[in-house]
Amino acid sequence: MKLATLRNGERDGRLVVVSADGRTCIDASTAAPTLLHALEHWGTAKPVLQALSSAVNASGTAGVTPFDGSECMAPLPRTWQWLDGSAFLNHGHLMERAFKVPPVGDFDTIPLMYQGAADDFLGPHDDVALPSEADQIDCEGEFGVVLDETPMGVSPEQALHHVRLIVLINDWSLRAMGPREAKSGFGFVQAKPSTAFAPIAVTPDELGPAWRAGRVHLRLQTLRNGEWLGHPQGGAMHFHFGQLIAHAARTRKLSAGTVIGSGTVSNADAGAGSSCIAERRMVEALAEGAPRTPFLRFGDVVQMEALYDRGEPAPFGALRQKVVRQG
Amino acid sequence: MKLATLRNGERDGRLVVVSADGRTCIDASTAAPTLLHALEHWGTAKPVLQALSSAVNASGTAGVTPFDGSECMAPLPRTWQWLDGSAFLNHGHLMERAFKVPPVGDFDTIPLMYQGAADDFLGPHDDVALPSEADQIDCEGEFGVVLDETPMGVSPEQALHHVRLIVLINDWSLRAMGPREAKSGFGFVQAKPSTAFAPIAVTPDELGPAWRAGRVHLRLQTLRNGEWLGHPQGGAMHFHFGQLIAHAARTRKLSAGTVIGSGTVSNADAGAGSSCIAERRMVEALAEGAPRTPFLRFGDVVQMEALYDRGEPAPFGALRQKVVRQG
Repeated sequence: MKLATLRNGERDGRLVVVSADGRTCIDASTAAPTLLHALEHWGTAKPVLQALSSAVNASGTAGVTPFDGSECMAPLPRTWQWLDGSAFLNHGHLMERAFKVPPVGDFDTIPLMYQGAADDFLGPHDDVALPSEADQIDCEGEFGVVLDETPMGVSPEQALHHVRLIVLINDWSLRAMGPREAKSGFGFVQAKPSTAFAPIAVTPDELGPAWRAGRVHLRLQTLRNGEWLGHPQGGAMHFHFGQLIAHAARTRKLSAGTVIGSGTVSNADAGAGSSCIAERRMVEALAEGAPRTPFLRFGDVVQMEALYDRGEPAPFGALRQKVVRQG
Repeated sequence: MKLATLRNGERDGRLVVVSADGRTCIDASTAAPTLLHALEHWGTAKPVLQALSSAVNASGTAGVTPFDGSECMAPLPRTWQWLDGSAFLNHGHLMERAFKVPPVGDFDTIPLMYQGAADDFLGPHDDVALPSEADQIDCEGEFGVVLDETPMGVSPEQALHHVRLIVLINDWSLRAMGPREAKSGFGFVQAKPSTAFAPIAVTPDELGPAWRAGRVHLRLQTLRNGEWLGHPQGGAMHFHFGQLIAHAARTRKLSAGTVIGSGTVSNADAGAGSSCIAERRMVEALAEGAPRTPFLRFGDVVQMEALYDRGEPAPFGALRQKVVRQG
């Protein structure tokens, strides 16, 4: 099943079911007014959504309209919780060097995770309004999972049964704030402005074997102003999503609608490129003595898309966002 | 105005307006179904709530019922964002020593702030279910403010105009997780289970001169199993709430319903006691060479209440929670 949220002037938008080819959609208000509502009532919403999915893929169904990712909000325009891991150790090692912070000793046995703002997610074509280029504007390509209500103390294996949807994320970051906030010990607030999402949230079955072992085995391709930045493989996650969820639920239950992020997709293979500028700059610094690639500037456009190994697009649709000056 | 949320079997409860003496209340569903909805539509909800406030305080009004804090959920049982500062420098200094982490250099010029879980707040009499005493269970008494929608880049002075409600908070903490999460740089996830709130959220005018200069000039009294732990003065905040809000809004807008916490209320005056066990333990360690007071145990009861200088209770009502074993 492929779900998306269209703008309707309301803060949570209007839920639609998208066709298999991603070209059409059908209103899903008979299942739930919003995606968050559907997740909170998944048992009753799911069969209605499945029937709508069949209908939108059948010929001659009334109410089927063209689907355009640029008309979408984030699948969840806001939700109750957004927790972002850092499950790609290659990214973590590079960022430790970039931030000049000491290595975390148990880095490969206990997931790193910060709590981000879930109150104001950006749609896939929304401008990214930020106050200053001096804040070192950066993108971060990630995969994420959306949960139903998940109990405290859930095991990593059981946790995977709570994954309802998979999403593609650009976790916008401000690198100038990162090191100070990391050193404070309190985590990232100013360094993490609103997070953006590809238009379509998919049920795990939509990815077929690309969703296995709790990981998304797809390449995440990032372009900056049309130029390739990278296409690292999501399957290289050190911790799988079940482990990230179990970490998050160690001392709290997680409400339906909680989004858990993988952290920046990153491979040790330098040929795979990067999903963020900071990583590329660190690779340049290590190879050439100094970073060469500038952080993002107002007017820059960042595109992200997930691809199967053979290069075909995965069903999330694409992000295409311009960075603009706030205010 | 004094607002509270009664249990009704729904996740967001039912909004009521509480009388001046805190003994009765009146249903507020004509103003808004929930407090979060009221905050998101404050311009239209406020006059209706004010009329209900007049009505509940008048004699002979129909529909007025007894009010009992033990029947309450948190005023906002869940919301879109919870950001907690650490604005009492005395607490910060003691916790640096307790956690054995290096001092933050700009501690007194840039607020410390972490993002916490807003998806599952506890009511004032809810049990606090946690997995293990070995996690070093602790309380943290704080004041907080609830905002309407607040723009990115707001100034500290303008930020205070976005304060709609003031709340009393017990920010439950697990000290065994704190140092590791602080050292990771990613902030607190496992160290911060669900946060609890006193029953009544008040508009700033309810506090009279106790709300001034962006600070809550009330004592926050904490009892453990009926024994006094402290009653430090909330007016001693180094950063005022406007500064905390402006810090939070530096690179993001804040949705209506955002809660900003003061951090643990703490005074350098040792006679004021503490709002958390960890602080008392550090004071003991510094004075006597080793901490004496144990962290909380299953079965322990923590009470918190805000008091005017003359000892009368402030209008938030009290928290009274028992710590129990999860599962």
